[in-house]
Amino acid sequence: MEVGQCDHLLLHRDRAFLSIIFDRPQVRNAMNLEMVHELERVMKAVAASDEIRAVILRGAHGHFCAGGDVKDMVQANERLQQDPNSDPFFELNRAFGRLLCLVDQLPQTVICVLEGSVLGGGFGLVCVSDVAISLANAKFGLPETGLGIPPAQIAPFVVRRIGLTQARYLALVGPWFQGEEALRLGLVHRLAEDRDALKRELDQVLGSLAMRGPQANAVTKRLMHAVGSKPLDDLLDNAAHAFSEAIRGAEGREGTQAFAQKRKPTWAL
Amino acid sequence: MEVGQCDHLLLHRDRAFLSIIFDRPQVRNAMNLEMVHELERVMKAVAASDEIRAVILRGAHGHFCAGGDVKDMVQANERLQQDPNSDPFFELNRAFGRLLCLVDQLPQTVICVLEGSVLGGGFGLVCVSDVAISLANAKFGLPETGLGIPPAQIAPFVVRRIGLTQARYLALVGPWFQGEEALRLGLVHRLAEDRDALKRELDQVLGSLAMRGPQANAVTKRLMHAVGSKPLDDLLDNAAHAFSEAIRGAEGREGTQAFAQKRKPTWAL
Amino acid sequence: MEVGQCDHLLLHRDRAFLSIIFDRPQVRNAMNLEMVHELERVMKAVAASDEIRAVILRGAHGHFCAGGDVKDMVQANERLQQDPNSDPFFELNRAFGRLLCLVDQLPQTVICVLEGSVLGGGFGLVCVSDVAISLANAKFGLPETGLGIPPAQIAPFVVRRIGLTQARYLALVGPWFQGEEALRLGLVHRLAEDRDALKRELDQVLGSLAMRGPQANAVTKRLMHAVGSKPLDDLLDNAAHAFSEAIRGAEGREGTQAFAQKRKPTWAL
Repeated sequence: MEVGQCDHLLLHRDRAFLSIIFDRPQVRNAMNLEMVHELERVMKAVAASDEIRAVILRGAHGHFCAGGDVKDMVQANERLQQDPNSDPFFELNRAFGRLLCLVDQLPQTVICVLEGSVLGGGFGLVCVSDVAISLANAKFGLPETGLGIPPAQIAPFVVRRIGLTQARYLALVGPWFQGEEALRLGLVHRLAEDRDALKRELDQVLGSLAMRGPQANAVTKRLMHAVGSKPLDDLLDNAAHAFSEAIRGAEGREGTQAFAQKRKPTWAL
Repeated sequence: MEVGQCDHLLLHRDRAFLSIIFDRPQVRNAMNLEMVHELERVMKAVAASDEIRAVILRGAHGHFCAGGDVKDMVQANERLQQDPNSDPFFELNRAFGRLLCLVDQLPQTVICVLEGSVLGGGFGLVCVSDVAISLANAKFGLPETGLGIPPAQIAPFVVRRIGLTQARYLALVGPWFQGEEALRLGLVHRLAEDRDALKRELDQVLGSLAMRGPQANAVTKRLMHAVGSKPLDDLLDNAAHAFSEAIRGAEGREGTQAFAQKRKPTWAL
Repeated sequence: MEVGQCDHLLLHRDRAFLSIIFDRPQVRNAMNLEMVHELERVMKAVAASDEIRAVILRGAHGHFCAGGDVKDMVQANERLQQDPNSDPFFELNRAFGRLLCLVDQLPQTVICVLEGSVLGGGFGLVCVSDVAISLANAKFGLPETGLGIPPAQIAPFVVRRIGLTQARYLALVGPWFQGEEALRLGLVHRLAEDRDALKRELDQVLGSLAMRGPQANAVTKRLMHAVGSKPLDDLLDNAAHAFSEAIRGAEGREGTQAFAQKRKPTWAL
């Protein structure tokens, strides 16, 4: 897997698991457009790779991600002054939505490990993860409308993550909250009291993922994402075809045989 | 803002916040058709006003709202006897659904303050609020099918509020429950043990809303409501346009500058 | 109500309540294709009957249902060897989805009583119930992708039951969990510490259902299922017609009169 140079990300691979670490300490890992493009490039390489089974998104220096970098706004404004017919704010905002779609639909399992600031765009990334593990004292919030702007690309993903009822409250009133509330709202799946516990939770998830069929997981994720966009009967027909293909394929044959023989499948890590 | 005479509502305005207080003590603020029409008129005036940022719905005399007034049923029946070709029950029921749509889509933030009875149609109003704050001992329930009738206009809003899983259980079995369960089900957002705490919770929400950009909040609410009715790419395109417009508009310019200068924006209350 | 011979189910009727008890002790009530067909036959008979108001699904011998019977897989494979142009795995899988649709849309209220194993297809059945009551130490999980196959027919129903956020985590990582977590995730509605409490919870639900109008419940279930598949205005028009029909019908007339006269309606059990 080749991803080229990254200035704002640290990449670390362990077996089939790729850690992508946000590394912009001066701004609590707030994303600028360059970092968004780097993430896009890495995600596309991962999507095309059959060596990676899961991606771990996390931040260096005690924070996950504080949102969007305000310096991008200044630059967008300068571009707008130079060319009043351009719409650099649209482009800037829309680029982040494309990244969110890419992460959401990634065939591999996406894990977010959360600590410190999880705000705005960082909050948006959590909303497209398959597994979110949070330190109890991580800080979550949607500060946008306090600045007179909407959480634009994030809004649909927040609604899909935790439902309209909670999303409208969080976005309009803007309360900050911590890990336990994030668990209660269904934003995250697992909670850890301290960094040792955070590591243990992540290791446990990776241990489980090592035993799950990577193709079966990719197919399952695709089937689940289709819910709501097609009539139920079509979903079920597609699902039955996917089932038949899986159980007659190499991974499914080995997996069901290993189960019957009470041994690990060969594809387990 | 001009709303005309209201016989069943008390209106009270404090800065940009309008309290609408149900005032039918003899029936625990159950709604009759007249009250529904009054609410409709007030909501339309609020929607057209740029002076109001939030609406607070609550009941006088220790109850939120006990549902629909059964006397309307008797009158509808009389009208049906006079004109067998009319369908007064349809009209009566449908009018309440129009009100629920209006409140749901109101550009301003809608806050429900809950105590005492929160039943039937009162339960329906909670389902279209942006923020719901409840006394711990408020009583919630959907009594309808115990009377041999469906919670007709309410049903879709209950499903959208708390999901089909909880909605079908509450509507079919009809358990009564209190504030803590309402919080757990995601029907309400905040809980208060007593009336002093209820006031503090409301003041805190209003204090937060005073700092949020009113245009940004209205745009956010509109974007979130569109989820599910349009393809994701269209939602994200619309959101990016809304973002660009907001950040170049007066509210967004002032909001982002105030943030950079670590001061309150001028539009804060 | 005539259902013919059942080899894998015990049926027990008490007033308007039909218990359907899975009875395959050797495999913790795992479903084979025959049992799926038997369930389909019973459900169709129930749907057509106006004597039954609620169906109780449960397992004999301390387990609810451990999923699909692996012996069906072996047989499907044999059929595939005999006729390489057939797709017995598709047929096998799709049959279960048809059953899930049937249970989901049953006009009567469906109650699942959960203990022991609630895995795979058993988990899927819970997802289409109106009421789920669980022993605290029941064991829930989606083991499928650990065998290299997707939880194909089940996936859409899990997403609709508990939302995509929790569904993707449970299906991809595959944690086993117990009743309290099932309650927190919104998979089940009520929890019981032991078998006595389980019986009390069920009796309480049946006691409530005995007082609810069976037609009104059937209409309500139909209205709620339509949410998401039609524009809101159409849903509300249909709901108002259903309301008008109900309140002018025998059940609604008797129910509202009994309410006004503070007595039990005659249709109460």
